[in-house]
Order: sequence, then C-alpha cells, then structure tokens
Amino acid sequence: MSLIPDSHRDLIESAGVGTLSTVGADGTPQVTALWYLLDGDVVRTSLITTRQKYKNALAHPKATLFILDPTNSYRALEIRAECTFEDDPDLEFFSRIVRHYGQEPETFPAEKDGRVILTLTRTRVVATG
Amino acid sequence: MSLIPDSHRDLIESAGVGTLSTVGADGTPQVTALWYLLDGDVVRTSLITTRQKYKNALAHPKATLFILDPTNSYRALEIRAECTFEDDPDLEFFSRIVRHYGQEPETFPAEKDGRVILTLTRTRVVATG
Repeated sequence: MSLIPDSHRDLIESAGVGTLSTVGADGTPQVTALWYLLDGDVVRTSLITTRQKYKNALAHPKATLFILDPTNSYRALEIRAECTFEDDPDLEFFSRIVRHYGQEPETFPAEKDGRVILTLTRTRVVATG
Repeated sequence: MSLIPDSHRDLIESAGVGTLSTVGADGTPQVTALWYLLDGDVVRTSLITTRQKYKNALAHPKATLFILDPTNSYRALEIRAECTFEDDPDLEFFSRIVRHYGQEPETFPAEKDGRVILTLTRTRVVATG
C-alpha cells in the first residue's frame, strides 16, 4: 500500500473539500465534491445509497479521491483506492465526519436515511507539487 | 448533447483550475488538475503524449472535467465527455490556452514537446448548487 507522504498529510488531515471519481456503467467517470476523513490507514466518507456514486462504486469498486491545495493549484494529493462499504449504525461515523468539519450532526442539513460508510483502501498515492 | 446552463457558465469561462478524470488500464480513475478552454461547443486542453492521462484517454476515450467553484464548495460543474485528439501544429492551441490563463507562451515553463489537443465532447453535464 502506498503511503501518504508527510509533505502532503496536511491536505488530507485538514477538513477540506475533495473530489471522488467513480466509474459509471458506460465507463465514464463521475465526479462529485465531498468530505472525507483519514481513519488510521484508510480514508472514509459517508454516502447515501440512492446516489449514483454509491451505485457506481458498488458495481465497480475502484475510486479516486483527489484533493487540490486551495492555496496552490500546483499542489495536490491523489489517492487511488479500492472501495468497500459498511453500515453506519446510529450514524456514528456520519456524526464524526460532520463534527470534523465543524458542524453539528443534529442540525446539519444533510439527508440521514440510507447512509453507509465508504472505505477507500489506497492502492496508489500520487503527491504533486 | 447536454448544454452548459447559463447559471454555471462562469465556472467554465473563467480561467480556473479543473480536474480531469480518466480511467486507467486496471479500471481505477486517474485525476489531475488542469487548465481548460471552452471552444465553441467543446472543451479543449493541451496534453503531452508521455503522460498517463493521455495514455488513459487514448485507450479509454471517456473522461470527465470537474470544476469546483473556489468560493462555494457546494457549487460545481461536471462535464462527462468523449475524448478525441488532434495535433497542435506550431503549438497554436497551447499558446491560446496559456494566454487565456494570463501567461506568455514563450516564457511559460511548460514542456512543449509532444503536445496534442484533447477535445472533450460532452455527453452529460451536471450542474450543482
């Protein structure tokens, strides 16, 4: 498993906005902005099972998280990964990630039904800049 | 062909930094930051043929340009597209895109050998926020 270099750990530890690229049934990438949380050796995010990115990653469990330094567009971290899913009983993980982003889970206006945890186990890391 | 809604044209007309997602041989998305230029009905960018994204898009000609509003991370434009390539004789297109980004082609420190034009002909546009 590739390591995240110390030089770019700030990009994944700060509560920034990343993009998740999945691959649709016709082979075209789908890209959305999302929150993420470094959790030991893996990266996790919270998804709703009605969304296309969930359906894509379930059918084709390879996805890439890309984080661009908002202050330097030549600096970025790309994490290519295998996808696995878990339930999120009592929305424990959802609450953790929402708090990591400085919001309150009780009042944060996100859909709560059908949430699962997507775990990204990295297969390759590319640090740029 | 999906249209780019007027509400999000600023994202593609401003000289911002987007990300290009291609799909590698093992099916994992590859994502890099890049410059782009709206050129009539298509989006174009300049690539070097030694780079992985070129090789990916040649082998699997479906790619997605994603542009996140730098001032509002809930607002984004996703352009899913078919890829075609053309030569860039005399680096005419390269010079255009570099000037669009406020730089001088003669002095801009980018590799010039092996440049081609990637044209993204959109198949689906998703505007968020």
